[in-house]
Amino acid sequence: MNPKKLIMLPGPTNVPERVLNAMLTPVMGHRTPDFAVLMKNIVEKSKQVYQTSSDVIVFTASGTGAVEAAITNIIRKGDKAIVTVFGEFGERAALLIEGAGGVAIKVEAPFGDVPRMGQLEEAFEKNKDVKALVIVTNETSTGTMFKWLKEAGDLAVKYGSFLILDSVSNLTADDIPVDKIGADIVATGSQKSLAAPPGLALVSISKKAKKYIIDNPPPLLYFNIARQLKYAEIGQTPFTPAIPIYHALDEALNMALEEGLMHRIQRHKLCADAFYSSFKAMGLKLFANEEVRSNTIIAVNYPEGINDKLFRGLLDKEYGVVIAGGFGPYKGKLFRVGSLGEVHRYHVVTTVSAVNNTFRSLMGKTRSEDPVEIARTRLKNL
Amino acid sequence: MNPKKLIMLPGPTNVPERVLNAMLTPVMGHRTPDFAVLMKNIVEKSKQVYQTSSDVIVFTASGTGAVEAAITNIIRKGDKAIVTVFGEFGERAALLIEGAGGVAIKVEAPFGDVPRMGQLEEAFEKNKDVKALVIVTNETSTGTMFKWLKEAGDLAVKYGSFLILDSVSNLTADDIPVDKIGADIVATGSQKSLAAPPGLALVSISKKAKKYIIDNPPPLLYFNIARQLKYAEIGQTPFTPAIPIYHALDEALNMALEEGLMHRIQRHKLCADAFYSSFKAMGLKLFANEEVRSNTIIAVNYPEGINDKLFRGLLDKEYGVVIAGGFGPYKGKLFRVGSLGEVHRYHVVTTVSAVNNTFRSLMGKTRSEDPVEIARTRLKNL
Repeated sequence: MNPKKLIMLPGPTNVPERVLNAMLTPVMGHRTPDFAVLMKNIVEKSKQVYQTSSDVIVFTASGTGAVEAAITNIIRKGDKAIVTVFGEFGERAALLIEGAGGVAIKVEAPFGDVPRMGQLEEAFEKNKDVKALVIVTNETSTGTMFKWLKEAGDLAVKYGSFLILDSVSNLTADDIPVDKIGADIVATGSQKSLAAPPGLALVSISKKAKKYIIDNPPPLLYFNIARQLKYAEIGQTPFTPAIPIYHALDEALNMALEEGLMHRIQRHKLCADAFYSSFKAMGLKLFANEEVRSNTIIAVNYPEGINDKLFRGLLDKEYGVVIAGGFGPYKGKLFRVGSLGEVHRYHVVTTVSAVNNTFRSLMGKTRSEDPVEIARTRLKNL
Repeated sequence: MNPKKLIMLPGPTNVPERVLNAMLTPVMGHRTPDFAVLMKNIVEKSKQVYQTSSDVIVFTASGTGAVEAAITNIIRKGDKAIVTVFGEFGERAALLIEGAGGVAIKVEAPFGDVPRMGQLEEAFEKNKDVKALVIVTNETSTGTMFKWLKEAGDLAVKYGSFLILDSVSNLTADDIPVDKIGADIVATGSQKSLAAPPGLALVSISKKAKKYIIDNPPPLLYFNIARQLKYAEIGQTPFTPAIPIYHALDEALNMALEEGLMHRIQRHKLCADAFYSSFKAMGLKLFANEEVRSNTIIAVNYPEGINDKLFRGLLDKEYGVVIAGGFGPYKGKLFRVGSLGEVHRYHVVTTVSAVNNTFRSLMGKTRSEDPVEIARTRLKNL
């Protein structure tokens, strides 16, 4: 039916066999001691990849669900929040702030770039009663990364604001030491850098955020963090969890910790670097400003005359390599390769080779400098 | 690690091998034609088990998420809703109505019983501007069922109100012909009578509800039905779906349709009847009023002197049979057997036998009338 393909998407990603097979663990009740053990394991391991000593909770939802939980548990009617907007996911965060009755103060950058610290400082200067600073740490829609997280944390402290991070697509791929940064709520998803199947959304909660949420319980049911924390004390979730994905996430966390978080981050950086170098060598124009380009989402402009649908269709049909197109206004104008989760030398070389061959056959020409060789050289130690 | 157990819980339920194995289908992107085919299949089959020609959408969430979606897409600030409360899930629905800024008019019954049509009629008479009637069709916490769905639908039409059904635990186990009833939004979950793993929540939407929601889009992101409907047109979901559970749900729907919906409903009724008869023969007192007892959740009072934790612990340890305890105020006072999804002669006889033997060994006595034989007789044609 479906041959096994190389899933080089911004998520879901390739899922290792070990992780997939964990889903077949026999069904258990979610109000049993067995489930409490599973949940305790997941929470303990999640804290390690979050680099935090505070709580981590898990929702059965997409990553957007985790971001919704983060924002709607903090923002109430009339609250101001500063939010970085440099792509689709920043727009969604702004929408969530407004949906919760808050006022979204957007700090923007042209797509392909990210806002700088000076802009954030200026927004705080103009609005001294800001309740939360919301930052998308990795913008999947444009392949860019906001890097100045420690500085952002200091800024939030200076102005007495909560710091909320949408790290759905780069926690465990980039170094996001939650406690050192001083981030209050950090959202991520199971199907991105963690390389588990989609279905679960994780959220870390600082002691300060926890106290605020428990003292001021939000008018929510499904995404109510106070309720989640209460059930977490006895190793349960308030509502029925997606148990097979819990088993998969547990195994994915095992793999991340076996590899070592810093090795994992280094591997993501190396693979992204190899992709960027190879695509440049093909004569392609990279979409993101080099200084802020993502280590997980490689966004590339199509050369003149290449049809997105035809190109990605061929890549899938001939090579079994699945990549993403552009998002929103960039539909048809760029392609995006997800280089995250289970991505090694094999994935990069195979993808670069397939992309290169497909461009050659579509454009009817060859290039003297071989991009595949460049990728292989860049990854000789991986 | 985990031996395979008989999961006789109110959900999650036992999941057939075919359904579990479907989760190993190779990972696919959720913005691909492959996923659109999968989603189209699920929607078409779901419409058959919902007995509706209107839309069905799927959220990555628990059943409570589906109920939250149903209520928060209809109820706005100041709206009145009549809600049946005869257990925990009715209380939750009331909480959701209030959380959405609405006014919950509770129509109650003592736990173990359900409200009658006369009470609903009276509530409508007292409140003529009611926007929605919300009914829990099967109350998992008490093992009772609200049966007068066609009458409730007529009542909602008479007073110009939407009808929302929380059928999380009995769609496909009881006959809930959505179009005939005239129900506007009906919520269910993957891990109940459908016998798929937990993680997905389904919602049917009548043409009238669809028009209302699209004309009056709710201030929501994750549970926004208007947004879901828009993406459904191209076979997608707005946010990353729990893909492995989609494959499982698709296979679970195949099994339901192969069996035939009416056969499946009859099987649930037969199995519940066998449980009730056997437990009565053990001299146990059933919790639910016989007239409104559930066909999926069998709630039974403990005899004097039996310790809940000890009893269910022994049942699990000695026989590998997992059942649930009482909910909220009934903790320790009753046990609940989930008789839904994959439940056949084997499951009933094994469970009754294990329960009977465990009671015998705990109470140090035998009974002359053998409850296991009674269950076997009741199921002789299954």
